[in-house]
Amino acid sequence: MLIVLKPDATPAQAERVCEEIRRLGFQPHPMPGAGRTAIGITGNKGPVNALPFESLAGVDQCIPVTKGYKLVLREMKPEGTRFKIKGTEVGGGKNFTIIAGPCSVESTKQMETVAKFLKDLGVNILRGGAFKPRTSPYSFQGLESEGLAILKDIGDRFKIATITEVMDTGAVEDVSAAADVLQIGARNMQNFSLLKRVGKAKKPVFLKRGMSATLEEFLLAAEYVLHGGNNHAILCERGVRTFADHARNTLDLSIVPSVQKLSHLPIFVDPSHAIGKREYIEPMAKAALACGADGLMVEVTPDPDHALSDGAQTLNFKGFEKLIQALKPMAELLGRKIN
Amino acid sequence: MLIVLKPDATPAQAERVCEEIRRLGFQPHPMPGAGRTAIGITGNKGPVNALPFESLAGVDQCIPVTKGYKLVLREMKPEGTRFKIKGTEVGGGKNFTIIAGPCSVESTKQMETVAKFLKDLGVNILRGGAFKPRTSPYSFQGLESEGLAILKDIGDRFKIATITEVMDTGAVEDVSAAADVLQIGARNMQNFSLLKRVGKAKKPVFLKRGMSATLEEFLLAAEYVLHGGNNHAILCERGVRTFADHARNTLDLSIVPSVQKLSHLPIFVDPSHAIGKREYIEPMAKAALACGADGLMVEVTPDPDHALSDGAQTLNFKGFEKLIQALKPMAELLGRKIN
Amino acid sequence: MLIVLKPDATPAQAERVCEEIRRLGFQPHPMPGAGRTAIGITGNKGPVNALPFESLAGVDQCIPVTKGYKLVLREMKPEGTRFKIKGTEVGGGKNFTIIAGPCSVESTKQMETVAKFLKDLGVNILRGGAFKPRTSPYSFQGLESEGLAILKDIGDRFKIATITEVMDTGAVEDVSAAADVLQIGARNMQNFSLLKRVGKAKKPVFLKRGMSATLEEFLLAAEYVLHGGNNHAILCERGVRTFADHARNTLDLSIVPSVQKLSHLPIFVDPSHAIGKREYIEPMAKAALACGADGLMVEVTPDPDHALSDGAQTLNFKGFEKLIQALKPMAELLGRKIN
Amino acid sequence: MLIVLKPDATPAQAERVCEEIRRLGFQPHPMPGAGRTAIGITGNKGPVNALPFESLAGVDQCIPVTKGYKLVLREMKPEGTRFKIKGTEVGGGKNFTIIAGPCSVESTKQMETVAKFLKDLGVNILRGGAFKPRTSPYSFQGLESEGLAILKDIGDRFKIATITEVMDTGAVEDVSAAADVLQIGARNMQNFSLLKRVGKAKKPVFLKRGMSATLEEFLLAAEYVLHGGNNHAILCERGVRTFADHARNTLDLSIVPSVQKLSHLPIFVDPSHAIGKREYIEPMAKAALACGADGLMVEVTPDPDHALSDGAQTLNFKGFEKLIQALKPMAELLGRKIN
Repeated sequence: MLIVLKPDATPAQAERVCEEIRRLGFQPHPMPGAGRTAIGITGNKGPVNALPFESLAGVDQCIPVTKGYKLVLREMKPEGTRFKIKGTEVGGGKNFTIIAGPCSVESTKQMETVAKFLKDLGVNILRGGAFKPRTSPYSFQGLESEGLAILKDIGDRFKIATITEVMDTGAVEDVSAAADVLQIGARNMQNFSLLKRVGKAKKPVFLKRGMSATLEEFLLAAEYVLHGGNNHAILCERGVRTFADHARNTLDLSIVPSVQKLSHLPIFVDPSHAIGKREYIEPMAKAALACGADGLMVEVTPDPDHALSDGAQTLNFKGFEKLIQALKPMAELLGRKIN
Repeated sequence: MLIVLKPDATPAQAERVCEEIRRLGFQPHPMPGAGRTAIGITGNKGPVNALPFESLAGVDQCIPVTKGYKLVLREMKPEGTRFKIKGTEVGGGKNFTIIAGPCSVESTKQMETVAKFLKDLGVNILRGGAFKPRTSPYSFQGLESEGLAILKDIGDRFKIATITEVMDTGAVEDVSAAADVLQIGARNMQNFSLLKRVGKAKKPVFLKRGMSATLEEFLLAAEYVLHGGNNHAILCERGVRTFADHARNTLDLSIVPSVQKLSHLPIFVDPSHAIGKREYIEPMAKAALACGADGLMVEVTPDPDHALSDGAQTLNFKGFEKLIQALKPMAELLGRKIN
Repeated sequence: MLIVLKPDATPAQAERVCEEIRRLGFQPHPMPGAGRTAIGITGNKGPVNALPFESLAGVDQCIPVTKGYKLVLREMKPEGTRFKIKGTEVGGGKNFTIIAGPCSVESTKQMETVAKFLKDLGVNILRGGAFKPRTSPYSFQGLESEGLAILKDIGDRFKIATITEVMDTGAVEDVSAAADVLQIGARNMQNFSLLKRVGKAKKPVFLKRGMSATLEEFLLAAEYVLHGGNNHAILCERGVRTFADHARNTLDLSIVPSVQKLSHLPIFVDPSHAIGKREYIEPMAKAALACGADGLMVEVTPDPDHALSDGAQTLNFKGFEKLIQALKPMAELLGRKIN
Repeated sequence: MLIVLKPDATPAQAERVCEEIRRLGFQPHPMPGAGRTAIGITGNKGPVNALPFESLAGVDQCIPVTKGYKLVLREMKPEGTRFKIKGTEVGGGKNFTIIAGPCSVESTKQMETVAKFLKDLGVNILRGGAFKPRTSPYSFQGLESEGLAILKDIGDRFKIATITEVMDTGAVEDVSAAADVLQIGARNMQNFSLLKRVGKAKKPVFLKRGMSATLEEFLLAAEYVLHGGNNHAILCERGVRTFADHARNTLDLSIVPSVQKLSHLPIFVDPSHAIGKREYIEPMAKAALACGADGLMVEVTPDPDHALSDGAQTLNFKGFEKLIQALKPMAELLGRKIN
């Protein structure tokens, strides 16, 4: 059940509702929104009786939940989740946020070049993998802690937000200290230990859809994060695995409006991993904007052909600049703002 | 092998090349383009020796073909196939052509209402099924020949082009007489008897991608049509079958630029069948335009909730008008013309 | 609704029930079984009232049907469909029937060699394609009518039953005259014109599962055949299309018990097309027997490496003999009889 | 490169080869087999020069490796990996090993009942989840450390081997102390941190195939385990995710012979998770045995309808006993021994 408070409900009234939820042996999850606060209830086994809540001061309505997920439901925050990452606002309908950078952090020099290039273009969130989930144990596994240190340094010096993947519960603390956003990769979308752990972290979580995850599984993975207490989650479609072989994965753009109907969480699109071929990134990025995605994650590096990983799907600077130039007027037309 | 003629090659020179091809026991397939003519060769088992052709007058170059398809190759017509359907130009990069109408032809009155509505909106190609491929033998199978007669009548009276599905070699003649475009449904994409037959028809063919067709299979199905002598083929992505269950099918938009890179044939998108839910048609249609599709096929009917088939995925007039209004400025921005 | 007659119901009583069904404007489909007759009703839009039937003489019970398919339902023939193909009994639980032969009919000599080999081994149904559905128009398309003539000749001379694919409504008559079983290929599983046509044919139909057909679609395709009046249908699993790339297709053996629970139709397995690699045919054939399949279709030819199609998945004589030797004791153990 | 020693090579000669490998900056991975020892080389970037090795005493041949995986390759141990789990031998071709038990450990009493039942039937490895990977954060997550304690107690008292899932690097030590085999679930098949960690553990690893893992990804996941130094890995097919909806997943049995051709690791089949329906477990288990699997994992519990998880796919005691009775004669016929 969700308990929606009146727009003018006081903090004391909200706390009174939370108390009552706790008294029943459940956990309250208050989620303040633009115009009102909703409070989710978890820990109950069956339906919760609305009666004791309806009579409490400040309560507007009680909405029963019939889906498996609760806290990610659009009803919890009808206007959509919106928050800032080092000053850059994500979500909420207006923003179209670009996250860009190389697949892997390879050196300070590489990251400096990319960070400067992105800042000049108005891109404010830099990606770069320090821990790389590689199919083969013999592939480059990332610079690991050295990569984290580079990210931290670049983030501080260039005043650019950073996002990097965390693959292990034991690394969440270090990654949280080095980067502004914690990425959960597609292969870990149902690593529930990790989801629980980042639910306790103080940094936003960027959750990539698993290779064969249904919409419900995707939302339930995000529910793990919110259930842990971390309301700052972003979802990301990155292609799913199908029989089709003309692209690395099949980019499933129809999940964008589907997520937005059911959930208040922002949904991004990663055309680089979805397609795996540089030349199709621009058309797919435009399609993502056109169908309403909240942002993009795109791989860019000065010299893709010599990258230590994923070169074939990575744009060079010229290609990336062209992409941004193509997106800008379309965003404007659609009433969106690239940031 | 493709033989590309010089821009100023004469018809007699082209015929001389064809003669030489026939003399070797092969079939020539001349395909006149905007600036030049290319001649495809089929019937050969192994590679064709370029030498005898290179010395013929009017020959510019000989391009070896390493793919399984030849006549659909972009190299045959680099500027893209472009032709008119009852006055409406399809393909070629500039045009964004809308095909719309009900799933099934149900009555003259219904089709009159839709035809008038579409013409007023500037939509020039009317769809409507007379023969319906239905999963169950107990579902409505279409009005069949009565439906064809209605289509013919509407097409004549409203000066609107019509497209309808043909499911059987035995019906190709009748459907060709009644409609302006022959649709091959997804379930028949590899009905090779039918593909051969429509390759001999005098009307353009609208070929829908099979539910689990790869790009190569899709292009080879079109190759059957062109190989039969019919160069006026249009491809259409309509969603593929995957594990994902939030939409009826998974719309695979990345096939749009992939087709356009490999082939000169126009590629349309059918968001209605792909998604199966009315509310997601507009975002997916915008995505199709944004990623470069040559057109759309959309289901629209005055009263979707009482349609004899596919109501849940069909727009009403208001929804369709809103869609066209949303597409127009985006098309303009992208240098495309809705027709 | 299904109307089940008493074991001692007379033909006159059965006809009286059919009359009543016709009087209501519906079609009766009597299906005589080992111990009793069931009569299916089609043509109704909503549920049929049982009352008028329950009081008719000879009626045992009326079973409402809630699935989309009716005539293929196990309840219509609880003991399973069983019929003879040129003397060889198929279906019914005991029989494990082998269909074998080359992918394509290539010559009389080839077919003579194979027919003799199979008869000597106790295999009684010979496969061989005269019309080949090929992905590319440039691949060998079969010997067509010449292939049919060879099949007819071989079937007559060697007293062996024959099965061959029919791809077009226009060819059903000729194929019915030449072969004992009409095969519908995977690509045509939802070629509804063809299904309707073979439903009127006098020969049994061997229906291969489509590459991405669900169980329900598969059964509904068979329902088309039975609805046309042809009760002699056999289903065949031949692998489905998935992301997996270690085999040509993914052999979905769990459909075997699933079909047998829902339907009275025999279900065969084609490991050759499913796997596409010769060396895995034997283990998969054994698995098919072990999970209860009613039979196998296997490709065998004297010289697979020079076959005009599908050589890589075809057993040579030695491999096929080894397969039969491996299946025999397992069949015996399981109370099944290879025929 | 693999270096295969002569059957009579001495330990000192083997060590000499390892020294040479280390001298070149690579890591040696000796894998003693029934008749000979093979030594894998990892850490090299390109091909390794065979010359310096071929002249060393005791070296029989040097085999270049062209696949991405090395240590799991069949060539490393042609007779197949074989090892004992608390006295029960797994792998090697003869053994068909049954792992059975409830989805979740629910109580000491439940586990006592199951352990006694299994021992009496000759089943020697007991499964039971203490940490449960659940799609929803609101589903029962397992008894966790209490479940481990129960497992340890049962394993000790009933002299039965135990297997349980480990979901987190932080839990590997505790799980290793409580159970005899560490299970990696399908959702964690590419949790590379966890794979690296269990590669350092002293207990065998039971690795389930990911929901959409290719054969190559599956083998590379196992390669992570062996690369960590743990040679006792077992693979398990548990169904993959496809469009098919008649079973929970699509059981891909053709991976059994495919794995056995490429790798020396044992491959098990879990029909319970693959199918998700109790009634189809027996036919699929028989198919798994028939196609050559090295063993089964099956869910069984005294009272499936009241299980806290996965009841619908779990056999009761009677059903499980029937299954074992059905498998025994088939195993005998095939020259296999159920243990």
